[in-house]
Amino acid sequence: MAGNIWFNVVDITGGFWEKIQRRNREVTIHSVYDRFAETGRIGAFDFDWTEGKPNRPHVFWDSDVAKWMEAAAYILRKNPDPALQAQVEALIDRIEAHQAPDGYFNIYFQVVEPEKRFTDRNCHELYCAGHLIEAAVAWADTTGDERFLNCMRRYADYIEKVFVCDKSAAFSSPGHEEIELALVKLWLKTGEKRYLSLAEFFLNERGKAAQNSAGPGSWLDGSRNIQDHLPVREQEEAVGHAVRAMYLYCAMADIASITGDSALRDACRKLWENAVGRRMYITGGIGQTRVGEAFTIDYDLPNKTAYTETCAAIGLAFFTARMNELFPDGKYGDVIERILYNGFLSSTNLRGDAFFYENPLEIDLASFRAMDVTSSNPSHPIAERVRVFSCSCCPPNITRFVAELGDFLYTTDETTVYVNQYMDSTASFDGVTITQETNYPHDGRVAFKVNGMNGRTLALRLPGWCESFTLTAGGQPVPVQPEKGFLRIPVADSAEIVLTMEMPLVLVSANPAVHEDAGRVAVTRGPIVYCLEAVDNGENLRDIALTYGAPANLSFDPDIGAYAVETAGTRSAPVPEGALYAPYRAGRVPVKLRFIPYYAFANRGACDMLVWVDIK
Amino acid sequence: MAGNIWFNVVDITGGFWEKIQRRNREVTIHSVYDRFAETGRIGAFDFDWTEGKPNRPHVFWDSDVAKWMEAAAYILRKNPDPALQAQVEALIDRIEAHQAPDGYFNIYFQVVEPEKRFTDRNCHELYCAGHLIEAAVAWADTTGDERFLNCMRRYADYIEKVFVCDKSAAFSSPGHEEIELALVKLWLKTGEKRYLSLAEFFLNERGKAAQNSAGPGSWLDGSRNIQDHLPVREQEEAVGHAVRAMYLYCAMADIASITGDSALRDACRKLWENAVGRRMYITGGIGQTRVGEAFTIDYDLPNKTAYTETCAAIGLAFFTARMNELFPDGKYGDVIERILYNGFLSSTNLRGDAFFYENPLEIDLASFRAMDVTSSNPSHPIAERVRVFSCSCCPPNITRFVAELGDFLYTTDETTVYVNQYMDSTASFDGVTITQETNYPHDGRVAFKVNGMNGRTLALRLPGWCESFTLTAGGQPVPVQPEKGFLRIPVADSAEIVLTMEMPLVLVSANPAVHEDAGRVAVTRGPIVYCLEAVDNGENLRDIALTYGAPANLSFDPDIGAYAVETAGTRSAPVPEGALYAPYRAGRVPVKLRFIPYYAFANRGACDMLVWVDIK
Repeated sequence: MAGNIWFNVVDITGGFWEKIQRRNREVTIHSVYDRFAETGRIGAFDFDWTEGKPNRPHVFWDSDVAKWMEAAAYILRKNPDPALQAQVEALIDRIEAHQAPDGYFNIYFQVVEPEKRFTDRNCHELYCAGHLIEAAVAWADTTGDERFLNCMRRYADYIEKVFVCDKSAAFSSPGHEEIELALVKLWLKTGEKRYLSLAEFFLNERGKAAQNSAGPGSWLDGSRNIQDHLPVREQEEAVGHAVRAMYLYCAMADIASITGDSALRDACRKLWENAVGRRMYITGGIGQTRVGEAFTIDYDLPNKTAYTETCAAIGLAFFTARMNELFPDGKYGDVIERILYNGFLSSTNLRGDAFFYENPLEIDLASFRAMDVTSSNPSHPIAERVRVFSCSCCPPNITRFVAELGDFLYTTDETTVYVNQYMDSTASFDGVTITQETNYPHDGRVAFKVNGMNGRTLALRLPGWCESFTLTAGGQPVPVQPEKGFLRIPVADSAEIVLTMEMPLVLVSANPAVHEDAGRVAVTRGPIVYCLEAVDNGENLRDIALTYGAPANLSFDPDIGAYAVETAGTRSAPVPEGALYAPYRAGRVPVKLRFIPYYAFANRGACDMLVWVDIK
Repeated sequence: MAGNIWFNVVDITGGFWEKIQRRNREVTIHSVYDRFAETGRIGAFDFDWTEGKPNRPHVFWDSDVAKWMEAAAYILRKNPDPALQAQVEALIDRIEAHQAPDGYFNIYFQVVEPEKRFTDRNCHELYCAGHLIEAAVAWADTTGDERFLNCMRRYADYIEKVFVCDKSAAFSSPGHEEIELALVKLWLKTGEKRYLSLAEFFLNERGKAAQNSAGPGSWLDGSRNIQDHLPVREQEEAVGHAVRAMYLYCAMADIASITGDSALRDACRKLWENAVGRRMYITGGIGQTRVGEAFTIDYDLPNKTAYTETCAAIGLAFFTARMNELFPDGKYGDVIERILYNGFLSSTNLRGDAFFYENPLEIDLASFRAMDVTSSNPSHPIAERVRVFSCSCCPPNITRFVAELGDFLYTTDETTVYVNQYMDSTASFDGVTITQETNYPHDGRVAFKVNGMNGRTLALRLPGWCESFTLTAGGQPVPVQPEKGFLRIPVADSAEIVLTMEMPLVLVSANPAVHEDAGRVAVTRGPIVYCLEAVDNGENLRDIALTYGAPANLSFDPDIGAYAVETAGTRSAPVPEGALYAPYRAGRVPVKLRFIPYYAFANRGACDMLVWVDIK
């Protein structure tokens, strides 16, 4: 088991992610706040909504704003911004002012339906509480000011009273998990053991069938959708609402790590293997279907209707990082990297102010139009990012995730410093300083300077995609092969180490059980998955076949800030003008192809897009 | 304009369709009756249902049984069967006994909700009336007994009173078209002009927006779903519920033919071209989506969720036959042939006692399971035929359609006898006798003996799929090229003519606007579209690529009674055991492929099936 090194001692100083972090603090955090102000989410904290006014608070609004506050706390940790700080403090003032005397805090259930407190398991009260707790811990860590933290301690105390002591709520565990992992953070911050116990209580209440408040005939059956179908230690299959699942599994991994509970560790391992090994898109997206925002079954990975919610990708990164602490293995960093550069990053436009909730792997506007024409409730993803959603959980989750990205670089145990992600950065912890100099993922060279290792081993993740590399220490080759995904280099005290990973284009196939991708390949380079867009390649992208063995050229695209791939393919010989069906004509027509990184799709207007391309 | 020759003077005497007709009268007609008896549809004619009893009559049950009666009438025309005749007569007895004094007849609205007569446009009263009228005309034609016909005349008179004279119904044209074409038949049978006028009245009422009783936000908007969005003469696009659309267009073509109304003729032409040229599957199936059982948009032809209701295919055949009378052209016979051998015939199992309502072009059981797991309301086709449906409109439609198949062989005008379909048969009309001797569609040789032509031209449809043929008269080659799809041979009086159409395997492509079929081909031979089934070819059919140019072998399958096609293809090189994603390995693996006629799929248990196959 390893411990994580948090972003407060890791600075991303240049390169790919520094630009994203800068965009996050200069554009995204403010854009999200402004949209939340426009839509009434900020004003709701005045607790002055009354029937007939616009912007009726929604049950999940507290969590939207709480995630934004947490993001602000992370940004302010290293980048003072008095205006941003004032926005958070104004919210904290209002939280203090309006928290109920008994400690309860929830805008909807204090302002709109005060008589219904803790009566409906699906109304997100404990989910909102969890995000408020996370924000309060983050704010205390950043500022030392414990006003918000004290509010949330009082709320947690009240929750313990209602659920554990009085058992007076209409349910005994949350309809949307999140508070469990937040209570672990609250315990870590305050040392108050009752919060850890409360987290364990909620975990252990799960899977008691009588609690199930969702009726049959809804999404899945209700209990599977909220991971309430089995006691958590008996769960082996990632089911139901993907975000709920991930937040639950995070807490399971936390508790397993803290208590050493082997049944919980085993369940985590099985759940992770199932989610990642059979139900994850190549982009790191999870949750295949819009119905219940849920997992479906093994190897069902439809591309055009992939739901792949941004929050689920974030949740999988959180869960996977915890797995990497429990069972250090390069495969965990591989999955986080897959998420970071693909299904997470696709959530945000290049400007940083518009977002996807769903991150499909294929856009076919014609088929979306067909769905629109027959239904007033379109059942397909949107094709262009928007600035805010009615259910706008993703944008603030995105901004907090980018702000805390430094969390994902390092883990340590007594003998080893694990390098899990490659980003141009400096870090200092446990007497060690590490500098990474790199243009990753544009190329595969990472130069490390380490000091203060005191005989520990430096373990560099060798990405699963990397088939050829060189490693030098002090300019001399180091002969080492990966073990469990890491290259292990003993370091007396300091060293200059250079890892150079060859980063060719790699065509990837899916398991044949994934029928949607049969006979097709994804173009990848390093961690980046590519896609075709119609704006570059014309319509009917499914007709395009990549030509196997054709030369490919990397061309840096300054708009995207990454390499595009130019290569050759073919299209079907045309059928006679106007014919719906006509005899097949052999002899495919050569075409030039341009692939861009998947994450950058839909930045030039709505157009068709495809990840899995035919190959001939 | 040509006139149709009806099945009563055309006998299908052998070959492919004789077997189907025999199966229809020996198995299907009885199986449908028995299921209707079991489910209460037959018993409902006793008018003795009361609240609390099982088998509450449904609003469309009259039409189910009426279509069965019509089928029985057609079968009895040539094949006496006293037991079958007694079943029909028992039903007629009850219709006579329970018809309301004012002429109204509808089980649901006389027994279940008598106060709601003609108050809800979507409740199928006029649709049921139409089918009863068709059955009554058929029964009078077969038996000469006009009891049933007189009942339906009284009902038609009552409908005229309610809709035209009193205007006392809550709507002014049907929510589900059908009565219009039935009233034309009633006029033809009785010579009573008022019935034709009533049909025209209903056509002309269509598209008056205020009638629209379906609210917004339902399937499509309600008015488009029932072709009520525009006056019929202004309709150019096949929209909405596909069966409703086809029955409407049939009546439009009928009235256009009778009155010479050029606006109506033009509308028919545009609607047919749109439906067939942009919205029809290669199987002849129409109506792409389950939502509203409806057309969607041009070139949207998803295979796995193709709705392609059997009744819609039948309706398209009816409409197309009328177009062939209006504008004689081989392309109409081509479409009827496409329907007959594919999307219609697929509706029935080889035994003749189980049916598909939907006829998809791809079955992927894994993805159907994924849909099941997330929804209690599965939104995919069934993978095995069943004996009866809760909405069981298709089975009786199938049995009447097979019984009247002889309708589709010949049309005539003053100078020409058109041969539209090739079936082993004899016919005698207008002083002409024609014999066809053929194994079609197993091979492409058809030998004609014609007598009594009296200087008329014999026009043989040269199918659109046929690229090479020979034609002889009295053993001598006849040099002739097709005009509008027909080979025209002047015949003094009698002749022996042999048409030999080469019938190689032909690979067919779809228009590139059909994204679902991009890069894929359908295997066809003559009129028959083939498919792959997993039981022959293993799972993951999308991974299979046909090898272009590989030799193909026809092998007669006695179970199917048709040729299977054996040829060679490849599958992707396997990915490493267990990997979800892995580097692409070039070098595809050769496999043997076995295609069977599409119509015969799902006769060996539920398994994956695919029409459009990759080609490499």
